[in-house]
Amino acid sequence: MPKTISSTRDPNADVVRWRSHFPSRATRLERAMFRRFLRAIGNPPIEVRLWDDSLVSTTRDKPIGCIVLADRATLWKLAFDPLLQFGEAYADGRIKVEGDLPQVLSVIFRIMNRIRKSPTLSGRVARIFTPRRGSDQQAALENVHHHYDLGNDFYQLWLDDRMVYTCAYFERPEMTLEQAQVAKLDHVCRKLWLRPGETVVEAGCGWGALAIHMAQHYGVRVRACNISREQIAWAREQARRAGLRDRVEFIEDDWRNLRGEYDVFASVGMLEHVGFDNYTQLGELASGLLTPQGRGLIHTIGQNFPQPMNAWIERRIFPGAQIPSISQMMDAFEPNDLSVLDIENLRLHYRKTLEHWLRRFDEVQDTVRDTFDDRFVRTWRLYLAGSIAAFDSGCMQLFQVAFAKAESNEIPWTRAHQYSPVHAELDPGYSI
Amino acid sequence: MPKTISSTRDPNADVVRWRSHFPSRATRLERAMFRRFLRAIGNPPIEVRLWDDSLVSTTRDKPIGCIVLADRATLWKLAFDPLLQFGEAYADGRIKVEGDLPQVLSVIFRIMNRIRKSPTLSGRVARIFTPRRGSDQQAALENVHHHYDLGNDFYQLWLDDRMVYTCAYFERPEMTLEQAQVAKLDHVCRKLWLRPGETVVEAGCGWGALAIHMAQHYGVRVRACNISREQIAWAREQARRAGLRDRVEFIEDDWRNLRGEYDVFASVGMLEHVGFDNYTQLGELASGLLTPQGRGLIHTIGQNFPQPMNAWIERRIFPGAQIPSISQMMDAFEPNDLSVLDIENLRLHYRKTLEHWLRRFDEVQDTVRDTFDDRFVRTWRLYLAGSIAAFDSGCMQLFQVAFAKAESNEIPWTRAHQYSPVHAELDPGYSI
Repeated sequence: MPKTISSTRDPNADVVRWRSHFPSRATRLERAMFRRFLRAIGNPPIEVRLWDDSLVSTTRDKPIGCIVLADRATLWKLAFDPLLQFGEAYADGRIKVEGDLPQVLSVIFRIMNRIRKSPTLSGRVARIFTPRRGSDQQAALENVHHHYDLGNDFYQLWLDDRMVYTCAYFERPEMTLEQAQVAKLDHVCRKLWLRPGETVVEAGCGWGALAIHMAQHYGVRVRACNISREQIAWAREQARRAGLRDRVEFIEDDWRNLRGEYDVFASVGMLEHVGFDNYTQLGELASGLLTPQGRGLIHTIGQNFPQPMNAWIERRIFPGAQIPSISQMMDAFEPNDLSVLDIENLRLHYRKTLEHWLRRFDEVQDTVRDTFDDRFVRTWRLYLAGSIAAFDSGCMQLFQVAFAKAESNEIPWTRAHQYSPVHAELDPGYSI
Repeated sequence: MPKTISSTRDPNADVVRWRSHFPSRATRLERAMFRRFLRAIGNPPIEVRLWDDSLVSTTRDKPIGCIVLADRATLWKLAFDPLLQFGEAYADGRIKVEGDLPQVLSVIFRIMNRIRKSPTLSGRVARIFTPRRGSDQQAALENVHHHYDLGNDFYQLWLDDRMVYTCAYFERPEMTLEQAQVAKLDHVCRKLWLRPGETVVEAGCGWGALAIHMAQHYGVRVRACNISREQIAWAREQARRAGLRDRVEFIEDDWRNLRGEYDVFASVGMLEHVGFDNYTQLGELASGLLTPQGRGLIHTIGQNFPQPMNAWIERRIFPGAQIPSISQMMDAFEPNDLSVLDIENLRLHYRKTLEHWLRRFDEVQDTVRDTFDDRFVRTWRLYLAGSIAAFDSGCMQLFQVAFAKAESNEIPWTRAHQYSPVHAELDPGYSI
């Protein structure tokens, strides 16, 4: 492990002037404090190097990485609210991580899982004073704009060619990201038991890949909404190119304004932005949009138990996002005459999806840095690496919930059709 | 529709002397009251014939059946608390049903689903005064004795040859009950991802079919408990005959007393008797019994939303039983470091299972009547037919919940293995 740090060793090194502003040595108290912090998060096999090159470590195992602090202020901020301040300092370039970033974070997350029942009082107090953004229509618009309107050009750099920005489904682990996103679209369509001639309503359609895939391969008509103007424009263009303008309609609107009657309701990667308080309203809307034999699917990031969103992710990446446990999700179904047919947890598929995204992102880092800046690049690397760690360590789950109207017996007899090699019976010309 | 009723038309006719005790004609008020009751439950396509042969009907559709009331007292009891008193009167032989009993009940259940948000005040008041049995160890013993210790001879008359008294899995609808119960055992084993050499603990093992199947076909060792003495004795005898006494251990004990460490936890058809208040304790126990890579499955009757058990079923069939919604079930998993991997709803498979059971029960009615009495036969016919109707109408669900320790990544990559034709990789000599 090298004893000195130079900016050339960090691929994200930038204007932060290491050690220049804080030339003083770390005090014994400061080292003791950090040791205390490491103990508080459970003695991870991770070293910490302070701004004067002094090494703090409480692990008895071989360290898998080293967290490097640029200055004294960062230490004190971490002590106050580690969950928020780690991300802030990493984005600022005042924390660097030597070793594999997802792996280091995963170790930290696993240890934090174990001590989660005693979160630091200071962190809790700090979060109380942090204003949360809501998820009404206006707030939803702002929140979505924050993340999704970074520009189609940006996402095109590192997403798959269909621009699917949700968990893929790797039928076989060695699939490419492109193949796995198509497999995910098919997995959703099979769970929804789509049949030619049916109508689908989609709430939160991203760049339109699912709607287009459904119309193209399953013979259905789709009406899909999204409040991101850039995404809707892109989706319409894709539908036009595929010659599907008469079978797929993309509307720039909030899910709350959906009307009509459909055979199928689908929502992939939107629930995270709906807000717990609105789940019952979403379920009521879905139930009302469905025919008596209607079916639906909601695909969302989830958690094993109710707990607040990571403060940094909520502030910097997904303002207003809320991640439900299964019991919380049931607010959408249980009061609304809906019957849950199937819940699948695809956590490890999201880990793999994110590994693909991070690798692709790293390949285009320079381009991203030119458009945005170094802080943006570090923020996104931490978000992607932290998400890999969250799905690896079991902090986050990915749930697909298939449902139907409570009284309908027009439901799949088994789930075997989800695993049949092709859907020749649906569309003779169909193949993945 | 015949105008008069003679006991020979009802296959369950017995000593009840129709009309002899209550020779008076139904009054205008009584007929009006009944009309009101029919309207209150939503004008079902069902006629009612009173004790003086007068016909009451509010349906505009073709009636699918006729409910026949023997006397005035029955009408008044029904008016007071229909959910409880229908079952009581049917068992007494004071209500008879012409037409297909499951179909008539299903129609009633569907209509009641729609008006469930305004249950009769009288019914609710009546239930408040009905003492509920608890589910501590002593109560559990009494409750289980009430239902499961009716005698192995009784259940042997109409269950499959392995004595599996839980929902079967009809891979194909035309399977026999015997085939479908084996398919269910395999479905559970596949979901649990059993591998040779692993250890399994089973909470509530019935007559031992799952434990024996696991040891026989998946190369695992099983420790299984049950508090029903008759069932444990039967299970031990089966294990002895199969030459599996060294690989399957049946213990007569409560699940709360299970100790040790196992790769797999299984519980099929026990949660119904555990009681909501004990779910967190059950999940804590399961979590504590599992290795860090441990997996589990709970199979239970469920509901789409929390609501009280039908009062008659709770009183006469399953004292102390409580049927959870998914959100209620989550009390077992969310507080206990467990991650839900897979939930499947097999509601229609239970309908079919019960259809098999009712047909077999009807074939042996005379034998059952000789051992018990006519009231017992009617009670069980109503229970089986009512259960068919409950699963048909969506009042009841059947959930299989597969789970793992939260931090374990040793989980199945997809669910495709649940649908592979055979498990040759597990046991070369294995086939259904």
